[in-house]
Amino acid sequence: MALALLTDYTGGQLPAGAQAAKLYAQAKQAHQDLESGAGQGAGMRGWLKFPAEYPMTEEYGRIKAAAEEIKAKAEVLLVIGIGGSYLGARAVIEAVTSRYYNETRENTPAIYFTGNTLSESDFADLDRLIEGRDFTINVISKSGKTLECAVAFRYFKARLAEKWAGDTAQINKRIYVTTDEHKGALLQEAKENGWPTFVVPTDMGGRYSVLSAVGLLPIACAGIDVDALMAGAAAAQAAYKEPGGAFGENACDDYAALRYYYYKHRRKAVELFAGYEPSMVQFGEWYKQLFGESEGKRGQGLFPGAVTFTTDLHSLGQYIQQGRRILFETVLRFEQAANGISLEEEPGDGDGLNYLAGKSLFEVNRTAFQATALAHAKGRCPSLVLALPKRDAYNIGWLIYFFEKACAISGYMIGVNPFDQDGVEKYKNYMFALLGKKGKEHNRVRAHLKRVYGLEV
Amino acid sequence: MALALLTDYTGGQLPAGAQAAKLYAQAKQAHQDLESGAGQGAGMRGWLKFPAEYPMTEEYGRIKAAAEEIKAKAEVLLVIGIGGSYLGARAVIEAVTSRYYNETRENTPAIYFTGNTLSESDFADLDRLIEGRDFTINVISKSGKTLECAVAFRYFKARLAEKWAGDTAQINKRIYVTTDEHKGALLQEAKENGWPTFVVPTDMGGRYSVLSAVGLLPIACAGIDVDALMAGAAAAQAAYKEPGGAFGENACDDYAALRYYYYKHRRKAVELFAGYEPSMVQFGEWYKQLFGESEGKRGQGLFPGAVTFTTDLHSLGQYIQQGRRILFETVLRFEQAANGISLEEEPGDGDGLNYLAGKSLFEVNRTAFQATALAHAKGRCPSLVLALPKRDAYNIGWLIYFFEKACAISGYMIGVNPFDQDGVEKYKNYMFALLGKKGKEHNRVRAHLKRVYGLEV
Repeated sequence: MALALLTDYTGGQLPAGAQAAKLYAQAKQAHQDLESGAGQGAGMRGWLKFPAEYPMTEEYGRIKAAAEEIKAKAEVLLVIGIGGSYLGARAVIEAVTSRYYNETRENTPAIYFTGNTLSESDFADLDRLIEGRDFTINVISKSGKTLECAVAFRYFKARLAEKWAGDTAQINKRIYVTTDEHKGALLQEAKENGWPTFVVPTDMGGRYSVLSAVGLLPIACAGIDVDALMAGAAAAQAAYKEPGGAFGENACDDYAALRYYYYKHRRKAVELFAGYEPSMVQFGEWYKQLFGESEGKRGQGLFPGAVTFTTDLHSLGQYIQQGRRILFETVLRFEQAANGISLEEEPGDGDGLNYLAGKSLFEVNRTAFQATALAHAKGRCPSLVLALPKRDAYNIGWLIYFFEKACAISGYMIGVNPFDQDGVEKYKNYMFALLGKKGKEHNRVRAHLKRVYGLEV
Repeated sequence: MALALLTDYTGGQLPAGAQAAKLYAQAKQAHQDLESGAGQGAGMRGWLKFPAEYPMTEEYGRIKAAAEEIKAKAEVLLVIGIGGSYLGARAVIEAVTSRYYNETRENTPAIYFTGNTLSESDFADLDRLIEGRDFTINVISKSGKTLECAVAFRYFKARLAEKWAGDTAQINKRIYVTTDEHKGALLQEAKENGWPTFVVPTDMGGRYSVLSAVGLLPIACAGIDVDALMAGAAAAQAAYKEPGGAFGENACDDYAALRYYYYKHRRKAVELFAGYEPSMVQFGEWYKQLFGESEGKRGQGLFPGAVTFTTDLHSLGQYIQQGRRILFETVLRFEQAANGISLEEEPGDGDGLNYLAGKSLFEVNRTAFQATALAHAKGRCPSLVLALPKRDAYNIGWLIYFFEKACAISGYMIGVNPFDQDGVEKYKNYMFALLGKKGKEHNRVRAHLKRVYGLEV
């Protein structure tokens, strides 16, 4: 078992007796509904069996080949995508390599994520970053119509055209498309120009798509062993297949049950994903989308936050220790040291650190974890601890699958469809109307905006 | 007035009548207590009059001179500090330049922030980043005893010693110290080695110190106009001096009163700082420390979060729109375009974006703001909007002072001392005991840990 869920740092805030039995039974039922397809959104469970099956497909091989091509020719890879079309790839790249990937890489392209903002300054920054460098685009969008993504793709296509003075052979060699298999504007454009295409699966939402072509192509371009990533996820798929029913039988069920307990029975409002590695910051962003977008509906859901310790103990630490008691933490701990850096003795001991000389930094960081978890539990902020052997592709693959499955079970427990996201459309509807986009549905929204807000659009 | 507080996007969730009058009167009283020193923690109000006074000091001139020296000799500046000793500088550098500062800078050193983690991997990453480059250290610590900071300083001092093969003249030219004016291990070491020193003021907490030497030296090293930064803050100091008493008289009071209203009268639990510029992400981290550490005590306080739109509309957007109604937003909007990037027309219009051709991206981003604020308000997540002319040093200085003062007033309104942070010590006490540090107080904690948790340390 690669991952262990520990409850030693909950300060006694744990379900027991009949309450515990009921909670784990509820989690088991939710798990069964997920496996059987009896739950809501059953058509969006493609991710459930994907890790074991996908590596045997023709497309998977093409992803690895395309990544080798891109690594060979590109100094910069621009990944154009928003939400699930970039968060997973960015999270895995930094988690497996470093938060300084772009500045420490060797023999792989710099990778910048765009198409996720409308900030003109960000476009101007990227113009400077691609200036004089051979750049390749991987655009990732199911329909090709998502505004941020479409705007960035049009913009950087124009930069490619400038760079290569309209030489279509050169331009077309530098565009890779990840989109719907059968339809859409982007697929059409790709076919017309001969760009290689990869599939955004129709049976999993963006936040569940990191282990498909959506995430794997950029991840492979960073030189990460995608076979190991998928093997970790596949091992988790096998390990978490059977529903539990009691604590210790299935960590996905256990985690879902305990989150539900804090949410429903301990009045917690915010779950903080906490790690002790700065290179896991982007993984926290992926986690926030996964849980926030899956559960935040119908007035429900824990608000997902993320912190990095010990860094943020000197920022949000005060609030966590003594602010409103609406928090609990899910702490990620790595069990094996990666480097073996130790503190050296210093003559004079001016800073008073000689008592640590010879101790590994890994051990000091681990002690900080223990002290923090004890202090927070004492302050009535319980920690659930996820202990993972190490920060590598295999274990990160395992962790991704663990969270995906636990999140689906958790969503069923609170009674929502964890696979939809209707709320994301609300601002888009207003935005397209305000931008003057043509179409009946936009006219309807414009009429509404005029009537309710007096907006002339 | 550089900044305007707009309430157009609150969906009617605003205080009125007698309730409003009472709230603004409470804010006025809190403001008066802050100005007069009648409030809690009055000894920590050094920041209140600092922006107007500090630029006239000898030290301020030395900071600018030191920054010129560092820019001339260093390829890399390592800033060693945790919490308030780095968040402000990092926030300002990215806000005024770019989130890609290290990759887009010209004629200024790369700047890496360390001393804020115990992750051995992060140390290993930095070893690679300083390899073969001429690096200078700015260590920022009041006492020199903060563990993360002291560990990093000892570590990178050893790297300097290796690089210069023990040539103390070369080593000593590359260390700048920001610490207590009169005492402490770090000051002592600086004196012994002839390192230039700058002062961590005793009358302001770390989270209020960005406009002192703590923040200004790294900020100046990034080539940012610190005079403009201070001028903006000084202008805000003058503008917000007089307590208000009714909406529109003093934006600090208004903001504090409205936050209090959402917290106490609308049962909001989380405040989200939202911006539309990715380069403001680190500013959000500074904001989270400022409010979280100032208010999160005695079981009180809004939990501070931060989001970047439109990016996170495809991540936390679903939760914000339809999850638990415990959120409100403080949205930062810039009023002036910076670049003038527009979308170009494309023949064929395959992506269907030609209706936007000729429109500036600035305008599209602004429309996204309007659509989002309307949609969220309709979903009962009100937005307070801070409208700031532009993203430059002057306006960021203004914004910093605005938040600092509003935060102090807000803390007084909820009845806490906004200037202390006792809770941060809890984990430290456990950690030092567990690490085997010598001392009576650590022995006491060890005895406690043994008694309560059975830990043999």
